[in-house]
Amino acid sequence: MIIVMKPDHTADELRELVMKMEKLGLKTHISKGERRTIVGLIGDRDILQEIPYTSFAGVESAHPILRPYKLVSREFKEDNTRFQVGPNCEFGGKAIPIIAGPCAVEGREVLEEIADALHELGIPLLRGGAFKPRTSPYSFQGLGEMALKFMSDVRERTGMPVVTEIMDPRDLLLVYKYADVLQIGTRNMQNFRLLTEVGQLDKPVILKRGMSATIKEFLMSAEYIMSRGNGKVILCERGIRTFETETRNTLDLSAVPLLKQLTHLPVIVDPSHALGRVDLIPAMTLAAVAAGADGLMIEVHVRPHEALSDGAQSLTPEGMANLIERLRPVAKAVGRELL
Amino acid sequence: MIIVMKPDHTADELRELVMKMEKLGLKTHISKGERRTIVGLIGDRDILQEIPYTSFAGVESAHPILRPYKLVSREFKEDNTRFQVGPNCEFGGKAIPIIAGPCAVEGREVLEEIADALHELGIPLLRGGAFKPRTSPYSFQGLGEMALKFMSDVRERTGMPVVTEIMDPRDLLLVYKYADVLQIGTRNMQNFRLLTEVGQLDKPVILKRGMSATIKEFLMSAEYIMSRGNGKVILCERGIRTFETETRNTLDLSAVPLLKQLTHLPVIVDPSHALGRVDLIPAMTLAAVAAGADGLMIEVHVRPHEALSDGAQSLTPEGMANLIERLRPVAKAVGRELL
Amino acid sequence: MIIVMKPDHTADELRELVMKMEKLGLKTHISKGERRTIVGLIGDRDILQEIPYTSFAGVESAHPILRPYKLVSREFKEDNTRFQVGPNCEFGGKAIPIIAGPCAVEGREVLEEIADALHELGIPLLRGGAFKPRTSPYSFQGLGEMALKFMSDVRERTGMPVVTEIMDPRDLLLVYKYADVLQIGTRNMQNFRLLTEVGQLDKPVILKRGMSATIKEFLMSAEYIMSRGNGKVILCERGIRTFETETRNTLDLSAVPLLKQLTHLPVIVDPSHALGRVDLIPAMTLAAVAAGADGLMIEVHVRPHEALSDGAQSLTPEGMANLIERLRPVAKAVGRELL
Amino acid sequence: MIIVMKPDHTADELRELVMKMEKLGLKTHISKGERRTIVGLIGDRDILQEIPYTSFAGVESAHPILRPYKLVSREFKEDNTRFQVGPNCEFGGKAIPIIAGPCAVEGREVLEEIADALHELGIPLLRGGAFKPRTSPYSFQGLGEMALKFMSDVRERTGMPVVTEIMDPRDLLLVYKYADVLQIGTRNMQNFRLLTEVGQLDKPVILKRGMSATIKEFLMSAEYIMSRGNGKVILCERGIRTFETETRNTLDLSAVPLLKQLTHLPVIVDPSHALGRVDLIPAMTLAAVAAGADGLMIEVHVRPHEALSDGAQSLTPEGMANLIERLRPVAKAVGRELL
Repeated sequence: MIIVMKPDHTADELRELVMKMEKLGLKTHISKGERRTIVGLIGDRDILQEIPYTSFAGVESAHPILRPYKLVSREFKEDNTRFQVGPNCEFGGKAIPIIAGPCAVEGREVLEEIADALHELGIPLLRGGAFKPRTSPYSFQGLGEMALKFMSDVRERTGMPVVTEIMDPRDLLLVYKYADVLQIGTRNMQNFRLLTEVGQLDKPVILKRGMSATIKEFLMSAEYIMSRGNGKVILCERGIRTFETETRNTLDLSAVPLLKQLTHLPVIVDPSHALGRVDLIPAMTLAAVAAGADGLMIEVHVRPHEALSDGAQSLTPEGMANLIERLRPVAKAVGRELL
Repeated sequence: MIIVMKPDHTADELRELVMKMEKLGLKTHISKGERRTIVGLIGDRDILQEIPYTSFAGVESAHPILRPYKLVSREFKEDNTRFQVGPNCEFGGKAIPIIAGPCAVEGREVLEEIADALHELGIPLLRGGAFKPRTSPYSFQGLGEMALKFMSDVRERTGMPVVTEIMDPRDLLLVYKYADVLQIGTRNMQNFRLLTEVGQLDKPVILKRGMSATIKEFLMSAEYIMSRGNGKVILCERGIRTFETETRNTLDLSAVPLLKQLTHLPVIVDPSHALGRVDLIPAMTLAAVAAGADGLMIEVHVRPHEALSDGAQSLTPEGMANLIERLRPVAKAVGRELL
Repeated sequence: MIIVMKPDHTADELRELVMKMEKLGLKTHISKGERRTIVGLIGDRDILQEIPYTSFAGVESAHPILRPYKLVSREFKEDNTRFQVGPNCEFGGKAIPIIAGPCAVEGREVLEEIADALHELGIPLLRGGAFKPRTSPYSFQGLGEMALKFMSDVRERTGMPVVTEIMDPRDLLLVYKYADVLQIGTRNMQNFRLLTEVGQLDKPVILKRGMSATIKEFLMSAEYIMSRGNGKVILCERGIRTFETETRNTLDLSAVPLLKQLTHLPVIVDPSHALGRVDLIPAMTLAAVAAGADGLMIEVHVRPHEALSDGAQSLTPEGMANLIERLRPVAKAVGRELL
Repeated sequence: MIIVMKPDHTADELRELVMKMEKLGLKTHISKGERRTIVGLIGDRDILQEIPYTSFAGVESAHPILRPYKLVSREFKEDNTRFQVGPNCEFGGKAIPIIAGPCAVEGREVLEEIADALHELGIPLLRGGAFKPRTSPYSFQGLGEMALKFMSDVRERTGMPVVTEIMDPRDLLLVYKYADVLQIGTRNMQNFRLLTEVGQLDKPVILKRGMSATIKEFLMSAEYIMSRGNGKVILCERGIRTFETETRNTLDLSAVPLLKQLTHLPVIVDPSHALGRVDLIPAMTLAAVAAGADGLMIEVHVRPHEALSDGAQSLTPEGMANLIERLRPVAKAVGRELL
């Protein structure tokens, strides 16, 4: 931590600051420049982060030097984290798994129809929402446990592991019972209680980036999960809020190589929620793979215009089949392959 | 809802769209312009909001005409919502209540010290965090129930009603038992389960604006609470995220007159979290009152540099006393008064 | 400047960095922590700013300690800058001047009508656009020199000094000839050639904040003007771009106390362009004065719905008269007065 | 244009609105819903855009239906615009040209060194700044005409056409004389006078997206150029400002397929300025090509740490050679090739 003193600070103020910092177990280095005096602080990262430096008299500003996350960082663990989901699907390896399915599970039949189409295309993982975070209290909120049962029945039949969102710590056991991978949605990226809970499970967690979160905040939320013992965290870029209104959000693909440099965790991309419109999804999915994505999450529906949520961004199975054809050569061109 | 057809749509596409919309109980008006055909839809707002228009063949874009909230709107209820907190404090009236206290309750003695100082200044309401949403899992997370007890003891002695944050639906009964006003923090503005829960209580709820939320989203979250029956919602502007780094967030005071035009609910301002630095708080508090704020929420600590969270933005009781002196004439100048 | 070395940097890389920095005349201080080695650099600010630190091998990041502006800073000049415009109007003093008038000058008669109404209200300064920066090439672009003549005739008759925007260095002499105060619009805040040109004039310049500019960038643009010799710079907060769509931009009033702390230059507020809708202007103008604004810039038109640009945000003279009545007590409450 | 009336508008207000609109030559369609009355307006786009609807009594809001640009739109011209630069390089075709070179021309020798290295790699176009828009007035501002001469000498020798930025309408003839392609920088995207000037030239113009510009604003700026007769406009995505601080800006690759849908103009990508750090450039360049970019603009310097501007984001020629090797298969995978 670097503390910059005000130009008019007094010797007493500097002395008191140094004394208090050393009392907290920190080492201090004072460096007097022409225009500013600077105090470097060395010591335990957690202590360093907690001190309200600018409330000390004479302090102008404080500049952290170290990144605040540990367990998720490449410094802490150099090799890519890899783990299995179901018998045939690995995250963090050379092969790129695709997670596909409807935004929300709307009924048994339509789910089966979608899942069968995806299974036929060789898609390894099925997604579907049982609990839906909706901006309006009057919108469809999901079928709850019934949706979970439908998905688990589909898994039985097709062998596809299922991915579903958890919104409330009270649903933990329920969702855990049915799902293979739990998802934390963008609006819950900083629902710290929920992060703490899924951090105690032994199943993988997809953590979606908050729609206005910085990369540092995103990684701090992953740190919450890892700090409780669950190392199977999958980071998911799903678009950030910008001024643009032609698309729902702006897919930040530079997050992919950046995250892969900062962390050992797998990084996947959800172009569907980022764009909110189906026509741009193919090009951006190709780009995601070229940027180094370790996985993809894509909404597919058999009849998008009948979808109870997010129909405008759903590919049809035909659209998905077509996209896969275009994806294969791009994956190969960057030394990867589709799972 | 206004649907704009693509320039090259077919007659069949238009016919099918109209048929499906009418099947859903909506009335349609077709209007053919030189460059575009437009379909107006009239009917139930909840149905109108749910349809994925752009997934219909031939549709270019869809433009909602009505705002999506009802119960919170001025159209629904013209007069300001007013309600009491404790025997002496009203929200929504001419007098402006101030809520003050530490960011987090750190211990019995320091809380009492702060509360006594505030009580002496005539501050009507005490705030203090028992459960703290912290970006880092390694930061102080609050004293939990112990903090709630300390606050409730202080209330016993001083008569000051207490305001505290709830982060988790599982804490509902606990927080309800001790608090007079429950607060939903900025990171939970779209924690829809939590909103639904506090919507079933009979105590007032302070809903803080999400740090990247639009006014529409903010009001939709208030609608969640009201739709469950709790009409005592206090909206709190607490700063939005912008590119500026000199302050923690950017206090959006234009939200105050804008919200007061759109909704009948009281609107308060928290300059402390918005700015994150104590030196700008006085000027912005004066401005908040001039802009029409119905209340203020300000962090005060007896020894800011010892605070376990957010010390850099805490006023001392002396600073608070000084601010109150400056606030009175401004409140009077805009036809208001401090409570 | 603080340089943070990568955890795996080599001794050679560190040595080479230090050598090159010292060759550039900078002093270096090396400080080895547990996790990182840090190099402090002391020396000429302009040299420090120009070095591409992270392109040196072994360097992780570079953190500037000093703010990059000089002449505009309070450190450089402690007292408020004050100067006259015309015989009766001062910027930077206790009294708050109001600049009012139409967005664009649309014709001689309508300008005279507006100016007379404003003059009668005691408004000291007249604004009006002769050259209009319009998003669309097909929109009204201003009357050019004719508009300047109309304004100068009005000044002759009423004594009101005139404020007008300059968009192009080639118009410099023309605008200089007619205007009392030159304005640089939000889209030209970083038109560095234009800044350099007005920096050589002896007339005051209103510099509008870029709609996505940080405070640092805003002050650097003012530094451009001052570095060429013109110290009569008036900073104008006019709203920043945010996600909100209910208003055109978001008026950032915290910029007012923040700027007044960082710089000695006068800071004024333009609520009209920030909000883009007339109904919120009164409340936000009161708030601007409460926040410490040194001046106001407000659009007024006699028949807003006939305005050729920005009619939706123009007050009528009656609205302006009403606003002035409400402003006086607020100004007094914060120890100021309207000019 | 769709006008929504306030719920409490009077019949007189509606009548007056309709009368005035028809007087302006517009056709009106009134549609009365349960909750709102709506007025559809049909007529000349330029007239529709200019009216300050919300300043009419009784009007709540106005919603444009048509996009405001014409000449740049796919509706106006369906086929991709293609044109030559120099004898061997085409924009808008299947082959992807790369523009490479230093941020600023720093001297004859270093430019030659860079250009020779690029020429050897087969890079078709050379970029280099003669006039540099710098945030600080104390930073290196470019060598001006001397730089232009150096570049033109290099062209003589290598045959590489040169691309350089123009900042000031007064430099028009000078830059026109030396450059093959003129570039408008991000800070000048809405320098409407400059746009108007380059719109009168017969040489291609690279228009960089403003760092906070929407796609609509970007296209409106291109419309400025085309409306003056110059149809050779190349749109360049170069990163937008977001909250992220790990990268300088955020490269918005979804702009590529979006722009290619909305306009017939070629769209290129500059990853160097977007990212501001060299390590992420390769991955994002691959992604840009996968997303459909029609060209690339990349900074290359022989000794990045000696660069007088933007060294931190410059590839070395070796880095560039390596990137080209990785780019070829990705281009092929999406049916393109490097020029």
